[in-house]
Amino acid sequence: MAHDRTSAHDKAAVRKLLDQVKAEGRTALTAPEGKLLCDAYGIAVPQEGVAGSAQEAAKLAQAMGFPVVMKIVSPDILHKTEAGGVVVGVKSAAEAEKAYDAIIANARKYKSDAKIAGIQVQQMLQGGQEVIIGAVTDQSFGKLVAFGMGGVLVEVLKDVTFRLAPTAKEDALSMLDSIKAGEILKGVRGAEPVSREALAALIQNVSELVSDFPEIAEMDLNPVFATKTGAIAADVRIVLDWNPPPQRYRPSQEEITRQMNRIMRPDAVAVIGASAEDGKIGNSVMKNLINGGYTGKIYPIHPKAEEIMGRKAFKSVKDVPGEIDVAVFAIPAKFVAQALVECGERKIPGAVLIPSGFAETGNVEGQKEIQEIGRRYNIRLMGPNIYGYYYTPNNLCATFCTPYDYKGKAALSSQSGGIGMAIIGFSRSAKMGVSAIVGLGNKSDLDEDDLLTFFEQDDNTEVIAMHCEDLKDGRSFAEVAKRVSKKKPVIVLKAGRTALGARAASSHTGALAGNDKIYDDVLRQSGVIRAPGLRDMLDYARALQKLPTPKGENVVIITGAGGSGVLLSDACVDNGLSLMKMPPDLDQAFRKFIPPFGAAGNPVDITGGEPPTTYKNTIKLGLEDKRIDALILGYWHTIITPPMVFAKLVVEVVEEMKAKGISKPIVASLAGDVQVEEAAEHLYDHGIPAYAYSTEIPVAVLGAKYKWARGAGLVR
Amino acid sequence: MAHDRTSAHDKAAVRKLLDQVKAEGRTALTAPEGKLLCDAYGIAVPQEGVAGSAQEAAKLAQAMGFPVVMKIVSPDILHKTEAGGVVVGVKSAAEAEKAYDAIIANARKYKSDAKIAGIQVQQMLQGGQEVIIGAVTDQSFGKLVAFGMGGVLVEVLKDVTFRLAPTAKEDALSMLDSIKAGEILKGVRGAEPVSREALAALIQNVSELVSDFPEIAEMDLNPVFATKTGAIAADVRIVLDWNPPPQRYRPSQEEITRQMNRIMRPDAVAVIGASAEDGKIGNSVMKNLINGGYTGKIYPIHPKAEEIMGRKAFKSVKDVPGEIDVAVFAIPAKFVAQALVECGERKIPGAVLIPSGFAETGNVEGQKEIQEIGRRYNIRLMGPNIYGYYYTPNNLCATFCTPYDYKGKAALSSQSGGIGMAIIGFSRSAKMGVSAIVGLGNKSDLDEDDLLTFFEQDDNTEVIAMHCEDLKDGRSFAEVAKRVSKKKPVIVLKAGRTALGARAASSHTGALAGNDKIYDDVLRQSGVIRAPGLRDMLDYARALQKLPTPKGENVVIITGAGGSGVLLSDACVDNGLSLMKMPPDLDQAFRKFIPPFGAAGNPVDITGGEPPTTYKNTIKLGLEDKRIDALILGYWHTIITPPMVFAKLVVEVVEEMKAKGISKPIVASLAGDVQVEEAAEHLYDHGIPAYAYSTEIPVAVLGAKYKWARGAGLVR
Repeated sequence: MAHDRTSAHDKAAVRKLLDQVKAEGRTALTAPEGKLLCDAYGIAVPQEGVAGSAQEAAKLAQAMGFPVVMKIVSPDILHKTEAGGVVVGVKSAAEAEKAYDAIIANARKYKSDAKIAGIQVQQMLQGGQEVIIGAVTDQSFGKLVAFGMGGVLVEVLKDVTFRLAPTAKEDALSMLDSIKAGEILKGVRGAEPVSREALAALIQNVSELVSDFPEIAEMDLNPVFATKTGAIAADVRIVLDWNPPPQRYRPSQEEITRQMNRIMRPDAVAVIGASAEDGKIGNSVMKNLINGGYTGKIYPIHPKAEEIMGRKAFKSVKDVPGEIDVAVFAIPAKFVAQALVECGERKIPGAVLIPSGFAETGNVEGQKEIQEIGRRYNIRLMGPNIYGYYYTPNNLCATFCTPYDYKGKAALSSQSGGIGMAIIGFSRSAKMGVSAIVGLGNKSDLDEDDLLTFFEQDDNTEVIAMHCEDLKDGRSFAEVAKRVSKKKPVIVLKAGRTALGARAASSHTGALAGNDKIYDDVLRQSGVIRAPGLRDMLDYARALQKLPTPKGENVVIITGAGGSGVLLSDACVDNGLSLMKMPPDLDQAFRKFIPPFGAAGNPVDITGGEPPTTYKNTIKLGLEDKRIDALILGYWHTIITPPMVFAKLVVEVVEEMKAKGISKPIVASLAGDVQVEEAAEHLYDHGIPAYAYSTEIPVAVLGAKYKWARGAGLVR
Repeated sequence: MAHDRTSAHDKAAVRKLLDQVKAEGRTALTAPEGKLLCDAYGIAVPQEGVAGSAQEAAKLAQAMGFPVVMKIVSPDILHKTEAGGVVVGVKSAAEAEKAYDAIIANARKYKSDAKIAGIQVQQMLQGGQEVIIGAVTDQSFGKLVAFGMGGVLVEVLKDVTFRLAPTAKEDALSMLDSIKAGEILKGVRGAEPVSREALAALIQNVSELVSDFPEIAEMDLNPVFATKTGAIAADVRIVLDWNPPPQRYRPSQEEITRQMNRIMRPDAVAVIGASAEDGKIGNSVMKNLINGGYTGKIYPIHPKAEEIMGRKAFKSVKDVPGEIDVAVFAIPAKFVAQALVECGERKIPGAVLIPSGFAETGNVEGQKEIQEIGRRYNIRLMGPNIYGYYYTPNNLCATFCTPYDYKGKAALSSQSGGIGMAIIGFSRSAKMGVSAIVGLGNKSDLDEDDLLTFFEQDDNTEVIAMHCEDLKDGRSFAEVAKRVSKKKPVIVLKAGRTALGARAASSHTGALAGNDKIYDDVLRQSGVIRAPGLRDMLDYARALQKLPTPKGENVVIITGAGGSGVLLSDACVDNGLSLMKMPPDLDQAFRKFIPPFGAAGNPVDITGGEPPTTYKNTIKLGLEDKRIDALILGYWHTIITPPMVFAKLVVEVVEEMKAKGISKPIVASLAGDVQVEEAAEHLYDHGIPAYAYSTEIPVAVLGAKYKWARGAGLVR
């Protein structure tokens, strides 16, 4: 029954069957109907047939191979086992004939007038490895295909992985390696490996079936018996949903780019609810636009004022003479809809909705209303319930917080206002170079994928970091992220990861947080670096814009403190980094610079009492040797090489090498008294992420850069 | 064959057998010998017997129950299967008789003159759950018993757990829950649960066997078939080692306490190699002792000087008139042995060996020499290759670093000098209250367990945090830690956790780092909180001395930022904390203080725009309600409640409650602009661990306090 996976699926057969099931008002399929769908999409199921006589049963069984299961087929007998209508483990033609007669006799005895259509003979599967293949429909990601180990493993260890459907062959194959017990499929203890091709084909077929027919809400092939030569689904369960959720509105990528460029880099901003009164949000926004140094046009909108903060005020956006790119709302929720209509009539492409009082306070209808207005007039909505946004290259601070000073290459966004404030505070404190900070709040319209599309083509942004509690359109996000992450690192802090967190998320934004495993798998497949926590996201965003992209996997630790070397090595393993196996000549070259009792290999332990030249020589060698791709430095505070002496010599060497065209990622861990903090800052200011009193953070940020670079195909 | 586990094991039988094996110069046991050992220690193995006739075979098989395996017993037939001498799956008496005759016939055909001793009939095990039970000998921990799932699980997932042998019943039972797939033993998919009692008894019996006979280096019962009623080892493998490592010297706990008190709280310190010359270590030590404010006697030892820094100098410790508690060595390695002998002759109980140039530089002999001197004269040695040590209650700074100012309750130690410097730097920068900082370096004598014994009875210490790369005597450490951790939290950063890290560790100190899984299991069983990284260890040490001990598991999050609430909830799950399920009356009580759209339940989301009174009222309620055991605060920086206003109100409420005798652990996460850093510091200064820009660290430190409190049996 196995189809060639490249042959066209029989869509017509499936359509016909599903139409019929729909007409009958059913949401579940019978076993034969399930088999029909499987046959149409090349999903191998056990062979079967219905026999009208003992001889026919024996013949059928012989053709499909023993053992077989035999079952009564009768509309009048529902409980087949109770009726003595099932015989399992039939091993020969003779046994099949005997079983046929016995079943018929039992059935007659059970219900003498039962209409008997015959006896089903079915191939009995055994041997091979039990796995599970299935499909689900996720609110955010749509159709997903799942793969896991069968038996108790999947139940006890939750050993399962997901991919977006339809699934490319490469992605289907990657699923086999993404489960914890994946090793088993390769054959352990002398067992034969299963056919990876057959499993991948089965996964693809399922993914294509559910994608072609969105009304298939869930599908379970459990168990699937995978062997050296094939994969057969022993049982099929399909659940239909005749009311699939409507498709979300998605403009084209070109349209999004056009809209987002006007919103993020506006030539003219209207402030609806601008105010001269201290303490009002409309006043803060005006002050921040003006004091932040924004040089575009600013139009205060106010029902009565003639002028606000030296700028001519207007009663409505409709009264403004020139073009307006974005309207920042600083008025109570109840006035938003009317003002938004005016924006629409004025053809303003973007509205930044600072006001709260929508879905987050239970005003779901109010939020729907503004969404509809947005759609009607083609206005993209940021928010509501946000602090606003920054775009530092244009000195734009359209928020009620204070302007941000340190321009740089990291663009950050947050779904929550509180987290947005933490982003601003940390960035300012750590002097993180920022291109944009954006609040997305209730995400009535603009979602993370719209921001990604903008940042992708924004030359001022090199790293993107996003805090989110849900993705309104996870599928669009995944598609865009897969493309963007090839060019720029995309870091995501997905909150509501855990059952407890997800509950808090849903009480917070009304968003039903998805299954975290799905998020995890899809984000990884999209090339996204997932930050485990808030501080990690911030550390990654700060460091990744500084670190050059590594060209290969050879990491070398150079350390003055042996103890730091051990902890840095631990951190390398935790972060998926490979310590280079030292070639003998390179080992010799390093040995020339270090004391005889310094440790060989990697870490290069130069030992604690060394002068600045030892650090200098070894770091220089690490940068010059082409086989080394990245350096992790472990500094130990001594009188002989004080912290700032170390920091300055590192910067010197790095700049000397840069002049020669050599640029490799370097991170540093500084162990010492408080003076190491100043040294770490000096290093960071000069492009070397450095951390006092931590061996974990420097390696974690290097690990994040590697994760990205590997996903983008930049590491050899 | 199953023994009652409380009955005495037959030690004499094992002794006799092992003596015989030793006499024969063997290190492996035959199958019958293995069975004898098992029988002697109540380890159930399959029943078996040797039959001399077909009838006897049938009778034996009948008695043990079918199926059985039958095997030829002949000294002349080594390859039984090849000779047709094995029949498996014998299911009845008739089959047993038939098999007997067939095997004899085959054997005759194979080798007509073979001497046949009979045919072995053995119970064939099937059904039940396959598990593995074993024992190993670890260099640091000695005898350990291991338990894991059988089959591919243990191989692919490394699903195994260890305990020190001998093992108490409670610990043996805990092993069943410590493996990832432990759920399977409870019966999943309708399978019957296995007998936990039987498995625990088997584990205990193995642990007692290897403890009673140290020459048993390794033991494997693989597989063990565990069923509802029992546990039988299908195969036994035993490896002997006739040269077990010598026992390490261990004084009694009383002796250690006496010695350590003289070392850590000395009345008189000699500085061997004291110097008036700036830049010398002996000069730094003198300066630090004097400038640090140490009020005990200080005796500079110098071959020529009359006086150093205003103190009378002596040529040798032997010339010093009064008693000396500790001698701090600041002389080159090559002079240490001689000076140490003089210390011995002078009956000085402790030597602090700052000099490097011993095992860490390859001078293993030199280290052995000083170890022997130490043993000969009963001098306890700290180091060599260390920075020295601090004991702040006595203003004692016997190091070449600078004195430490902030007295407090955390005692810290490090094996590595670099990590020691990081401890000092972080502590100073974060104003961590410290009682002691100790460098252990090469650990020629004093090990972490000696420090633990001292800190246990040191009233100035409430939290102990230790960085180590190995434990010279893991077994002593585990014993002492188990006792001490009942009174004071013990935090351990075990470096060299990973394969890479362990390699660096062994090149650094010459210590063979143990299997990390063993460390992990033993440390957990000893009530130790294992810090995942350096910064975590430091954060735990800083916070745990501030946090009151929680009385129960009910944690409540009170947050102004909904987004922080979600991330704090995630962190609760990550750190094993339970968010209290809100009773309706308490929910109502909170609701009285928060806006109608604030989120119900837990987190209590007071929403962002609230005045100080809302924070105040809800925090007060959280402290007053007896059902709540701990609070996590999420602050959101707003104009209405600025950071310092929040910090001060929290301190006020906490102090008001403290006056009423209410004290609960509180931690805070502060999201906001840079001003939150000052607020966090204010909170920390007043006993509330608070962190800017992080939702993970506050919950991690609370989680660490809980982990400790649970282990110490203080949480209801």
